[in-house]
Amino acid sequence: MTRTEPAGTPLGDAFHLYDTTLRDGAQREGITYSVTDKLAVARLLDELGVGFIEGGWPGALPKDTEFFSRAAKGELSLKHAALVAFGSTRKAGTAADKDPQVRALVDSEAPVITLVAKSDLRHIERALRVDVDEACAMVRDTVSFLVGEGRRVFLDAEHFFDGYTFSPETSLRVLDAAAHAGADVLVLCDTNGGQLPLGLAETVGEIKEKTGFRLGIHCQDDTSCAVANSVAAVQAGATHVQCTANGYGERAGNADLFAVAGNLVTKLGMEVLPTGGAAELTRVSHALAEIANLAPDTHQAYVGSSAFAHKAGLHASAIKVDPLLYNHIDPSSVGNGMRVLVTEMAGRASLELKGRELGVDLAGRPDALTNAVRKVKELESEGWSFEAADASLGLLLRREVEEVSGEKSDPPPFELESYRVVLDHRPDGEVISEATVKVHVAGERVIATAEGNGPVHALDAALRQALTPYLSWLDSMELADYKVRILPSNPGTDAVTRVLIETSDGEHEWTTVGVHGNIVEASWLALCDALVHKSLTVASGREQSVPELGVAAVGG
Amino acid sequence: MTRTEPAGTPLGDAFHLYDTTLRDGAQREGITYSVTDKLAVARLLDELGVGFIEGGWPGALPKDTEFFSRAAKGELSLKHAALVAFGSTRKAGTAADKDPQVRALVDSEAPVITLVAKSDLRHIERALRVDVDEACAMVRDTVSFLVGEGRRVFLDAEHFFDGYTFSPETSLRVLDAAAHAGADVLVLCDTNGGQLPLGLAETVGEIKEKTGFRLGIHCQDDTSCAVANSVAAVQAGATHVQCTANGYGERAGNADLFAVAGNLVTKLGMEVLPTGGAAELTRVSHALAEIANLAPDTHQAYVGSSAFAHKAGLHASAIKVDPLLYNHIDPSSVGNGMRVLVTEMAGRASLELKGRELGVDLAGRPDALTNAVRKVKELESEGWSFEAADASLGLLLRREVEEVSGEKSDPPPFELESYRVVLDHRPDGEVISEATVKVHVAGERVIATAEGNGPVHALDAALRQALTPYLSWLDSMELADYKVRILPSNPGTDAVTRVLIETSDGEHEWTTVGVHGNIVEASWLALCDALVHKSLTVASGREQSVPELGVAAVGG
Repeated sequence: MTRTEPAGTPLGDAFHLYDTTLRDGAQREGITYSVTDKLAVARLLDELGVGFIEGGWPGALPKDTEFFSRAAKGELSLKHAALVAFGSTRKAGTAADKDPQVRALVDSEAPVITLVAKSDLRHIERALRVDVDEACAMVRDTVSFLVGEGRRVFLDAEHFFDGYTFSPETSLRVLDAAAHAGADVLVLCDTNGGQLPLGLAETVGEIKEKTGFRLGIHCQDDTSCAVANSVAAVQAGATHVQCTANGYGERAGNADLFAVAGNLVTKLGMEVLPTGGAAELTRVSHALAEIANLAPDTHQAYVGSSAFAHKAGLHASAIKVDPLLYNHIDPSSVGNGMRVLVTEMAGRASLELKGRELGVDLAGRPDALTNAVRKVKELESEGWSFEAADASLGLLLRREVEEVSGEKSDPPPFELESYRVVLDHRPDGEVISEATVKVHVAGERVIATAEGNGPVHALDAALRQALTPYLSWLDSMELADYKVRILPSNPGTDAVTRVLIETSDGEHEWTTVGVHGNIVEASWLALCDALVHKSLTVASGREQSVPELGVAAVGG
Repeated sequence: MTRTEPAGTPLGDAFHLYDTTLRDGAQREGITYSVTDKLAVARLLDELGVGFIEGGWPGALPKDTEFFSRAAKGELSLKHAALVAFGSTRKAGTAADKDPQVRALVDSEAPVITLVAKSDLRHIERALRVDVDEACAMVRDTVSFLVGEGRRVFLDAEHFFDGYTFSPETSLRVLDAAAHAGADVLVLCDTNGGQLPLGLAETVGEIKEKTGFRLGIHCQDDTSCAVANSVAAVQAGATHVQCTANGYGERAGNADLFAVAGNLVTKLGMEVLPTGGAAELTRVSHALAEIANLAPDTHQAYVGSSAFAHKAGLHASAIKVDPLLYNHIDPSSVGNGMRVLVTEMAGRASLELKGRELGVDLAGRPDALTNAVRKVKELESEGWSFEAADASLGLLLRREVEEVSGEKSDPPPFELESYRVVLDHRPDGEVISEATVKVHVAGERVIATAEGNGPVHALDAALRQALTPYLSWLDSMELADYKVRILPSNPGTDAVTRVLIETSDGEHEWTTVGVHGNIVEASWLALCDALVHKSLTVASGREQSVPELGVAAVGG
């Protein structure tokens, strides 16, 4: 049988970082993992170095049964983590070894079993409909049976905090029953998520003192305190903390594994991950979002793409002096990076810093910098926004540098003479979008017409038709994302449309922006920037700057 | 001069719920408020009943200067909140009354001023580049000048917690200088957001005991503990808490106003909102997300659409026994509702209820109800959303009723034969949008052509030109808001565009929706619904249902 203890952290079994993404996390509205997904999630969590991975509820869910059997057949070999099966105590009035749900836990071959048991008198009486004696017997029998089968057992005491407030003696009896039957960790669960840190820490400390048991914590985020509650519980004596990736979970979710680990490592100096694990937090967080098919939360603590992004011009000057004055930790320690956002609040300092990030040196060119600052402010007052459009900003900065220095870089890949888009809603109800472009490329005048399912799509299609014969790299480019924002007209001005286009060439993404009263023209401007950006990186082969652009563009 | 104290809560000035969405919240990557947006945000926050609304930094940002002058000119009349201007202490080596940035605070006519001051020795020496004496003088002079000008002054002690750890005496001297110069509240700011609740609460209690000053708290979310830290500070003696709507803010964001208020009201029993305010939390949260053009966070504590959503399974049945066994509070107390996720979509009951709200009786018409449920499910699977588009939903329900009952209401005000939109980007760079519509109205076939600054604007203009001679009421209608969302394409499907149009006739607003692969056709569908809705209410004169539609539409 495989390992029942975590491996690879200096703290070893003394502290448990326990992940339940695959069981409690899957309760989040919108998440449905295939068995293959579940195996991939488990591998990533093991790479990160969590101590325990709860794989699901064998017997209750066919998918989970299959997950454990495929894991047992060797499809999952874990370096750091021990695999955990989740299940419930035996039914009232049955023997544990006769209860199919309990047998399924044994059959899962998982070395560790986490049993959920009700520890709130109201739930025992009104949901389970048994008395406290039977509730405790159900716990006792099931734990000792599984221990007898050679498994390590943890107990999830459901609704513990609410229950302990309502009837302390009941909740304590449930813990006692489990502990004396051989359960290793008593996990206090804030199942409804109503706790606040100060009160929760006090309760954990009190239970610890009264019982001396090894305690764990499981928090839900209904007060937006799941991470804080988990950390507070550890400070109060819990040595086992249950989390989910990115806080996925039912309702408001669970405690976010990445924020909890980030806090324990960087704030409390606890080595809860193997060497190098902390630096993997950002990568693993985003990879797990991908598998869940959810967009990563850009503002997530520690791992979000905006977690270390600074907007205010106010700070930017001082950030140059000493980044750590304005970051609570060194972003690289969790595998993240600092970004400076250019906004109407931008001053010279932040724009110079941004230029460096985009591979345009403005430090030695005060005039270009002055013009660039003026230009950006001007454009942003017209509704442009470069925060998410690094590629367009990079082009703007290059143009300013070239204008001042006179050094021309490669000419634009093509020049537009004109375009026309025709939208027809025909009497039969059919809607047709057709675009014609007239462009000059490689000394030729090219005219091309194409249809699309909308005006922008048609325009893009016509442009590709015209240019592809001359620009081989155009084939690799595709529109990855298209965002439209109508900017409310201020008194006396017409509303304008801002278009953000994210383009990908398979290796990198970059984002460009266009603003105009006409949505099609705004899209055209963003499309053209996307092409020029690509042609520049191809021509100059200045590959080292592209990854930076790529990374920054992810912010969009 | 207007009020300097919050009104309408039982706690009055004894506790400050302070919102800084318009200043610190606007630091969030991706948020750019127009002045009109800022006024709308302030009105919603005042409806909710916050005590203080920080409007921005006059003098530093032209938009904020304009916001305060328009507010002073009477465009903003606040029932509960006092308006606050944010600014910095005087420059080193200048007199406060000569510092243009300080003067701008006075000129803003805001009755309350929040001054930011550095309280971390390292920031004073390395960012400000002055000694502690001058730093304190800058605070003292600026506070007394503003107090002399009859303003109430709060002090944001920037980087307080990090500073207090590094050099306690420096941080305390800054607080002293402000307090003795007449600052009312000393706001301890966790500017870098690195704090955890237990430690932060200890520090707040210590400062309270050492100084006896009135303390406030301002937390950033970099440890995912901003809400917990804010509540812990209040428990430790802070009586002023600064938050932002939905936690908008730089990096990981600020403390979420709605979670903080939810916790203070439902967990600590503090009456920090006027009567009925708590029940508005969900509506206001979603409305503010709309103004920021950000999708509401479905998993947000208290106000998220999933905050009380239970996946059918383990406890779905027990929930029926007693919902409060499985929710930490009654969802309705914060204006939210419980959902059991058996089916994704609204079922018969909710649609019947909605029909009643929209003045369409489905109770007596089971067949119409069945068809309506099918139709809504069908459309939502194609990307339609009726949550914010009550007027379109009302029309859909009416059509279903008419189809089943055979009773025809008034014919649609016009019928479309065809339209054509031509967009020309001419060689001289000029961009022209021209639309031609062919419609049948009042027995006539009418053809009209008009230009506009974009395709939709041109189409709207052409339609008005064609119809106004026949539909007198058309003149009173105007496009109040126009929102576009590109819906990501599912595998094998093209991306579609969803357009929401809010129309106003001066008395009421109503919102309609259109979805199509072509943005112009999607807009056309929403435009037509808007006209038909208006014509129905005119014809039937069923005015009583219109306000409800209007109100409901605002929710979007």
